[in-house]
Amino acid sequence: MKKAGHPIGLKQTQCEDKFWSPYQKLVVDTVIPYQEKILNDEIPGQEKSHALANFRIAAGMEEGEFYGMVFQDSDVAKWLEAVAYSLWVSPDPELEKRADEVIDLVAKAQQPDGYLDTYFTIKEPEHRWKDLLEGHELYCMGHMMEAACGYYEVTGKKKILDVAEKMADYIASVFGGDHYGIPGHEEVEVGLMRLYQLTGEEKYCKLASYFVENRGQRKDFFHEEKEKRDFSIFNMDPDYLEYNQSHAPIREQNSAEGHAVRAVYFYRAAADLAGATEDESLKKACETLMDNILQKKMYVTGAIGSSGEWEAFSKEYDLPPDRAYAETCAQIGLVFFAKSMLDMDADGKYADVMDRCLYNSTISGMQLDGKHFFYVNPLEVNPGLSGEVFGMRHVLPKRPGWYACACCPPNLARMILSLGRLCWTESEDTIYSHLMIGQKAQLDLADIKVASEYPWKGSVKYQITPKAEKKFTLAVHIPGYVKESGLSITVNGDKAEYRMEKGYAYIEREWSAGDQVEITFPMEIRRVYSTVRSVDNVGCVALMRGPFVYCLETADNGEQLQALMLPRTSEIREQQETEGVLAGTVTLTMDGIREKDSAQLYSEAAPERENVTIKAVPYYIWGNREPGQMRVWIRE
Amino acid sequence: MKKAGHPIGLKQTQCEDKFWSPYQKLVVDTVIPYQEKILNDEIPGQEKSHALANFRIAAGMEEGEFYGMVFQDSDVAKWLEAVAYSLWVSPDPELEKRADEVIDLVAKAQQPDGYLDTYFTIKEPEHRWKDLLEGHELYCMGHMMEAACGYYEVTGKKKILDVAEKMADYIASVFGGDHYGIPGHEEVEVGLMRLYQLTGEEKYCKLASYFVENRGQRKDFFHEEKEKRDFSIFNMDPDYLEYNQSHAPIREQNSAEGHAVRAVYFYRAAADLAGATEDESLKKACETLMDNILQKKMYVTGAIGSSGEWEAFSKEYDLPPDRAYAETCAQIGLVFFAKSMLDMDADGKYADVMDRCLYNSTISGMQLDGKHFFYVNPLEVNPGLSGEVFGMRHVLPKRPGWYACACCPPNLARMILSLGRLCWTESEDTIYSHLMIGQKAQLDLADIKVASEYPWKGSVKYQITPKAEKKFTLAVHIPGYVKESGLSITVNGDKAEYRMEKGYAYIEREWSAGDQVEITFPMEIRRVYSTVRSVDNVGCVALMRGPFVYCLETADNGEQLQALMLPRTSEIREQQETEGVLAGTVTLTMDGIREKDSAQLYSEAAPERENVTIKAVPYYIWGNREPGQMRVWIRE
Repeated sequence: MKKAGHPIGLKQTQCEDKFWSPYQKLVVDTVIPYQEKILNDEIPGQEKSHALANFRIAAGMEEGEFYGMVFQDSDVAKWLEAVAYSLWVSPDPELEKRADEVIDLVAKAQQPDGYLDTYFTIKEPEHRWKDLLEGHELYCMGHMMEAACGYYEVTGKKKILDVAEKMADYIASVFGGDHYGIPGHEEVEVGLMRLYQLTGEEKYCKLASYFVENRGQRKDFFHEEKEKRDFSIFNMDPDYLEYNQSHAPIREQNSAEGHAVRAVYFYRAAADLAGATEDESLKKACETLMDNILQKKMYVTGAIGSSGEWEAFSKEYDLPPDRAYAETCAQIGLVFFAKSMLDMDADGKYADVMDRCLYNSTISGMQLDGKHFFYVNPLEVNPGLSGEVFGMRHVLPKRPGWYACACCPPNLARMILSLGRLCWTESEDTIYSHLMIGQKAQLDLADIKVASEYPWKGSVKYQITPKAEKKFTLAVHIPGYVKESGLSITVNGDKAEYRMEKGYAYIEREWSAGDQVEITFPMEIRRVYSTVRSVDNVGCVALMRGPFVYCLETADNGEQLQALMLPRTSEIREQQETEGVLAGTVTLTMDGIREKDSAQLYSEAAPERENVTIKAVPYYIWGNREPGQMRVWIRE
Repeated sequence: MKKAGHPIGLKQTQCEDKFWSPYQKLVVDTVIPYQEKILNDEIPGQEKSHALANFRIAAGMEEGEFYGMVFQDSDVAKWLEAVAYSLWVSPDPELEKRADEVIDLVAKAQQPDGYLDTYFTIKEPEHRWKDLLEGHELYCMGHMMEAACGYYEVTGKKKILDVAEKMADYIASVFGGDHYGIPGHEEVEVGLMRLYQLTGEEKYCKLASYFVENRGQRKDFFHEEKEKRDFSIFNMDPDYLEYNQSHAPIREQNSAEGHAVRAVYFYRAAADLAGATEDESLKKACETLMDNILQKKMYVTGAIGSSGEWEAFSKEYDLPPDRAYAETCAQIGLVFFAKSMLDMDADGKYADVMDRCLYNSTISGMQLDGKHFFYVNPLEVNPGLSGEVFGMRHVLPKRPGWYACACCPPNLARMILSLGRLCWTESEDTIYSHLMIGQKAQLDLADIKVASEYPWKGSVKYQITPKAEKKFTLAVHIPGYVKESGLSITVNGDKAEYRMEKGYAYIEREWSAGDQVEITFPMEIRRVYSTVRSVDNVGCVALMRGPFVYCLETADNGEQLQALMLPRTSEIREQQETEGVLAGTVTLTMDGIREKDSAQLYSEAAPERENVTIKAVPYYIWGNREPGQMRVWIRE
């Protein structure tokens, strides 16, 4: 199997992007400090976290009881990982000092044999590894491995990496042979593959392979485990195997099933593993699962996991806009999964889904103040129903503050701060640019400065400074929606010679310092339709421009968004917003029709109509003004 | 308060109707015998009923344990009530003998003090009256009162009426004074009002009044009750007061809330009480609640209780077609409630809702074989989603057989067999005809033979034989959808003099034997639209003809009914069906458009279109052919 290349390190890139740099600043200035306060129980009125206290107690530094979710440790790990990236984006010696102290604490809480889980250490030491279905031990340790790799990568400090390696070695000593086990929530596989990528130690790859390949091999495992134990943390059904993707070995799975976050974490690890081991059939399995998502189970915003129950994938084409679960973390996981696929196979479909998620259903999870977050990212919200009636209780019309189960905020933080890693794949002779994000990148073949007007304009420049005189290829992902007729690629001002292959423009040449590749394309407004197989979206149109999906909000359009219709022939005008929360965005206005309100429930007279102007705003920014309805799919 | 009149007795009417007589025959020949076998545990493969065995055990005639739901007794009561009406519709001495035996058994199971409930008698005698929230004692006794009245009315046999009166007297001795109590499921109020109407005994009216008026007076009652007891039957939340309408006194309730069956049973009893006591403000409260249903909480099929959770009313205008609960029993209860309103106030809106429910969402609950039943009557079914995904698990694409909780089948049986009682209200000087059902009626003022082509044609004849020479008024309900321009009313062939008031045509004259009133109107196909306030039904049209709502089925239209569109200008043709399950019905065909299927989830190309013929069938008959999709609201 020929791989596209290898991922790059975070420190090879520095983001300088009009769209993303402010987001990174928000995370550094607001999200991370806020979460630090949460972990330290310093935010009055917020539910107690106790996460660091749990580590102090487990470390024997403090008396007390464990408090929080069984996976409370992962909050500390995710914060540490985000801090690591933050220290690269914006060095902060004071923050680094505090993070070092947290690491000291984590190291002290680790048991002599390498085990690290404060819940079981403090509360139920006799139950260690006895409830893999619900215990989240491997999940928490996996996150600590990711944090360790990130922290070591950025700071060069080895202490937390030692903790992670000791942990991984210990896990390897426990599982395998007679001791079959798989985690109820995948993540350790991701952590192990990250550890492998960083250290090059085959044993971590092997252990990740153990967990990936053994999943679904013994279908009665969780059931038998439950039979054997006399305790339960969540009283989960051990026979709902699809929930945690243990219903079949991954190579026999044809569709994305179960808890969406678990699923994409699992697939991501499998893709990393397939790439590392050049395992063609495992790669194929990953591609099958990704295709199933992209072709049958993904909202137009890139969101996944449409079922309001179990945070799970639903049936194919079942994508209700008003009952969506579409957890922020699931979309983040999908972004990472797509990047792992890209490292194997530079196929534009993967870069396109990253684009779709990054500019829509991931960042929609965060209020512009950095202090309020959605788990659930619906495509339609109707206050009075959303959050209130059966089937929609989970759909909130307003982002709440921090949660007890605080998975999404730190997950967003780490994604936003580590965007640079998503942008590139490099091989001996090719640099793949997946995302048009402005930055400086120090790659093996060349230094590249990317100046980007994306996503608001179709204009991006790559300034190349090759490391050596060598012919190599710059392969730039051209978003799938760009029509080739409008695409212009120049090198130093002259029309470039390039070939398009699976969504990438391949430009091969002897590069000289200062060579400039300029890519431009018109940013057209697109009407997007759903297949009629998706029952809920028939008769409707979604508007897109660049990677952005648009939506209607009450703030611009008044009440009863369901009464608005957009004639197919209406011209759609765009304007640059300069004021208020919309400043900097391009919004759309168009002539539309409104069906008039009527108090009569049923009538032989069709609703009267009036001409109105409809305004649409980028989906990601919804819910930042006065509360009201929101709607992506507009009646046509 | 001037009442319209009084209800009539079942034996004053004999149904001879092309539409309903076959239904009555089906109930007599199939439903009642089938249920009798169920009660006797004689249907192999069906879940054990044990209902009669419970009575034998309670009567001390047999050893054993109670088995079944806490309200299992009501199955026997409902069967007895249906048998009573059946003996009038189609006398059957053998059946009557067996019913008499059941009555003997019931009488034996009654405790010396009058209490009758086999669950508590056999299983938890110490808990009598200790769990009014969940215990269903008053509910079961209420049904036995209804059965008793029906059986006495038809057979003249007093034994079961004695049981009912003893029971009612006992209840009256328990409640009131220091012993506050209301039932968690209303029904005893209905039974008591029926007992009052039959016997004229004020004490029953007074006891009904106690239960009606005390509901909602002590909001902490169920909570305190639960605090006091150390057992629970269903572990119901005692603080979800809306569920059983105890959140406020009825006169302070402005909207229909909670469990829809409980609600309409309660409102019906309140309406009967308001009529009996000529209580204007109570009548007003009932009208407010009915108006709230009719104007804000009713499906176009007449179905109510749209929430998939708690079988309950949802928010105003929240009428999702594919997630409807719309329990058959709720619609039956609404019919009875409407009739009770009509006895007070001959307002066509009440007769219209009876019409709407009778010809649509009540009988849709029963397969044409009389052996399969829906609880849930959706307006849209999509196999693969319906019954399978979150929020739609309760929506079945096919009628299953008998249920463990068998409320709907016998409820349908009694409604269908006692239709005659719904047709008339009579006062000293007016006969009100509410429904255009063919029959012979022996009323106080006249005998009337009704020959009806309704509901398929707008043609009904009333042949009047007055009992005495007296001027009186025949007030005939003209369905609300009939345009006055098309309405023809003749008396003995001559254009009649009449006045229209609130949907009734009042014809006052000195009637002579043989006088014939003929009413005709064109049966037009109507396009019906929902207010845009009802988010789920915007952009769609429902087709109606006469009282019938129409629907599309896969059997006629293939897959993907959501892809079908009906242009507003399409002519709709009707045809009389002569073959198969549709024989006798009028179906509709029209030129429509189908959006073509596409495997591509999202596309910039709008779905291609093709011209197709769309066929619609009456809603009530859906699901009687090969399983597939069904859809009432058609995209326009």
